[in-house]
Amino acid sequence: MEQNFQQYLNHHRNSHLEQLKEFLKIPSISALSEHKEDVKTAAEWLKTELSKIRMENVQIFETDGHPIVYADWLHAEGKPTVLIYGHYDVQPVDPIDLWETPPFEPSIRDGKIFARGASDDKGQVFMHLKAVEALFETVGRLPINLKFIIEGEEEIGSPNLPRFVEEHRDLLKADLLVISDTGMIEKGKPTICYGLRGLCGLQIDVKGAKTDLHSGQYGGGVQNAAHALVQLLASFHDKDGKVTVEGFYDQVLPLTDEEKEAFRSLNTDEEQIRQELGVPELFGEKGFSFNERTWVRPTLEINGMASGFQGEGIKTVLPSEATAKITCRLVPNQDPSEIYELLVKHIEANKPAGVTVSVTPFDKGTPFLTPFDHPAIQAAGRAYEKVYGVKTAFTRSGGSIPIVADFDRILRIPVVLMGFGLPNENFHAPNEHFHLENFEKGMETICHYWQDVSTLDFR
Amino acid sequence: MEQNFQQYLNHHRNSHLEQLKEFLKIPSISALSEHKEDVKTAAEWLKTELSKIRMENVQIFETDGHPIVYADWLHAEGKPTVLIYGHYDVQPVDPIDLWETPPFEPSIRDGKIFARGASDDKGQVFMHLKAVEALFETVGRLPINLKFIIEGEEEIGSPNLPRFVEEHRDLLKADLLVISDTGMIEKGKPTICYGLRGLCGLQIDVKGAKTDLHSGQYGGGVQNAAHALVQLLASFHDKDGKVTVEGFYDQVLPLTDEEKEAFRSLNTDEEQIRQELGVPELFGEKGFSFNERTWVRPTLEINGMASGFQGEGIKTVLPSEATAKITCRLVPNQDPSEIYELLVKHIEANKPAGVTVSVTPFDKGTPFLTPFDHPAIQAAGRAYEKVYGVKTAFTRSGGSIPIVADFDRILRIPVVLMGFGLPNENFHAPNEHFHLENFEKGMETICHYWQDVSTLDFR
Repeated sequence: MEQNFQQYLNHHRNSHLEQLKEFLKIPSISALSEHKEDVKTAAEWLKTELSKIRMENVQIFETDGHPIVYADWLHAEGKPTVLIYGHYDVQPVDPIDLWETPPFEPSIRDGKIFARGASDDKGQVFMHLKAVEALFETVGRLPINLKFIIEGEEEIGSPNLPRFVEEHRDLLKADLLVISDTGMIEKGKPTICYGLRGLCGLQIDVKGAKTDLHSGQYGGGVQNAAHALVQLLASFHDKDGKVTVEGFYDQVLPLTDEEKEAFRSLNTDEEQIRQELGVPELFGEKGFSFNERTWVRPTLEINGMASGFQGEGIKTVLPSEATAKITCRLVPNQDPSEIYELLVKHIEANKPAGVTVSVTPFDKGTPFLTPFDHPAIQAAGRAYEKVYGVKTAFTRSGGSIPIVADFDRILRIPVVLMGFGLPNENFHAPNEHFHLENFEKGMETICHYWQDVSTLDFR
Repeated sequence: MEQNFQQYLNHHRNSHLEQLKEFLKIPSISALSEHKEDVKTAAEWLKTELSKIRMENVQIFETDGHPIVYADWLHAEGKPTVLIYGHYDVQPVDPIDLWETPPFEPSIRDGKIFARGASDDKGQVFMHLKAVEALFETVGRLPINLKFIIEGEEEIGSPNLPRFVEEHRDLLKADLLVISDTGMIEKGKPTICYGLRGLCGLQIDVKGAKTDLHSGQYGGGVQNAAHALVQLLASFHDKDGKVTVEGFYDQVLPLTDEEKEAFRSLNTDEEQIRQELGVPELFGEKGFSFNERTWVRPTLEINGMASGFQGEGIKTVLPSEATAKITCRLVPNQDPSEIYELLVKHIEANKPAGVTVSVTPFDKGTPFLTPFDHPAIQAAGRAYEKVYGVKTAFTRSGGSIPIVADFDRILRIPVVLMGFGLPNENFHAPNEHFHLENFEKGMETICHYWQDVSTLDFR
């Protein structure tokens, strides 16, 4: 036990890669029923490995779909308990022709390991196992209490996870949830995403006359459903793209000066984004940067709309129906149900004359935030910096990760998204790969993080 | 020659009906190539009949499609010359199962003659032939000079007529064009439609980013093509449905007091229209009746629009494209090309930020009007009144009849739409029929009209 964990990880680099290849060889595609046994094999492989590295209470929980693997080690008395979430299932591999090497025959080239699941998420799950092993083999114990929950249905939307978490609150009780299933904003730049937007959506259906009408015979005499919808939809924004629904921004948590500075320090190149998107100019709420608009400001987007004739050429019809789908991306502390009510109120207040309007809600998702200044977030930043030698990027994401919202809702503990993927590693696409640099640095980062977390007081 | 034309028409009622049946038996469906010979047969039948009733210079003109039948009688020296337009082709008969008696086996029941073409337009063309016959057989001559142009392609959009008219301006030279191919607003209420709306349309295509974007990742940061289109479309109308395009109403001819009174006297039941359309309320420009809004006020209608996701449920996409088709119904004296320019100017002035907008024009149509106080219009009203014993309804129509606009443009003579159909006679549908009451009264009306027209001075 004279070695430190860095030396241990270095010495065992090759055997660790061989073990990772074994894990990656299992075609655990959760979406395809013909791979059901493979998914089970991956769960059992994990069970065996977790036991080997001295994790305890290792169990496979059956669900209505694929199993959930659990393990813990709870002998760091008085120290925080961390729950690690990951998934061992992978995406399908089509189009298979585009793979340079077969997706389930892992291959190392140019400092990357190529295989389905290399980055998303087997590679990152495996790093946590080896970090635990390194700590046990060098220090003889873990500095914190640790629990693993590794599911096999993330790529099909985690249909059984929320119920499992609800039913096993005590088993999963922890001070902190760590997920390594996201990425860094660029190579060499460790990144912590500490907030996600939520979701609230609805469909608007406008109905005018019983049937489409002849625009000559009736045009001017009766409301056109497309006109009515257009008037209503236009009422949702001002010219600068700010949402005009009353009360919409009331609960929006403003950025702290520290957060603003953290975003500014990313030096995001908006002109490059503009070019990549191919738009004449970026557009949105005045007074906010692109990052701020997409990460910390709520939106109301028309996702689709349709009315009347859509074929080639002209048809002089006065449409009797018009429909639009809308979703809002919400930010802390907006409540999806409350926002839905505000939208309905706005629609009622702006209901156009001469038609009937009906509204259908879609699923809702709560926005997520672990405060920027939370000790667990700041400690994760420090752990990255120790290994990568550069300042950690603190970001938020404009999208939603449903399982994060679910964990947040059920367990009510801080969540740290500590990811090691890179933007161009082709997750969900052919030639998925993972940079070995981040495989190695990631395991070290995790070890440092547990040491730092052990000094924190979550009570 | 002691009889007057009423007595003559009465005495020959049965033989006229037998002749009409012969005409109706010919399945002259212009749309179906297997009926090409039948269409020709109908033209030849007309040629024979026109000769029999002492019309002269009877000719069949071949075109690239179906032939045009011409005839004249030009011996009323110093008197006006009237050109009569009609068509001898008919619509297809599908769905054939819904016909109570076969479409080409004319059948009389309940005071109506049932057959394809009974009302549209063989029945009405035939009435003009028999009116001529009655005048020759009783008075020995016609009170005016008369020309017939009867085409075989009206039901397929008259593709060869405009060129024929252009190339035969001298042959077709006349003081007045009379068309009997429209209807009366209700049973027992003779009707003259003296104005039609024109047309001007365009397609708007809005283009944002290169591809549809993830609404989480990009929402708020870049213009949504659907938002841009909606803002632009909403800018075309105010809340009351009035078009807000600058200069749009500048050339609109206001109604005279006589026209307003004529429309008011129709006692149109707007509540009944509302119920038939199934709308919560009628809607349109303030200060105008339903008839005024649909007949004499120009409109701008969205005929169709589309953007983004249109399937079931939700897709959190930020659409990169949005498109809308728009047509304006125009009224005298609006010029379609001028209005198109105003629309383009409006679009440029209201172009939303962050997207590109392109505009594609559709075909244009000039509005038509024979002034309400034109002697030929007023004389037609008097002729109807003599026979029907009630006040003639003077209307306009919100739709367009392309051949009327073409004749108006090329020949520059007043046009009188003197129709004898009724709204529920199923033209273009199964069980087309024609009321014999209007068959008989119509022929008398035509005879009276020619007598009245012979007293008018068109110079």
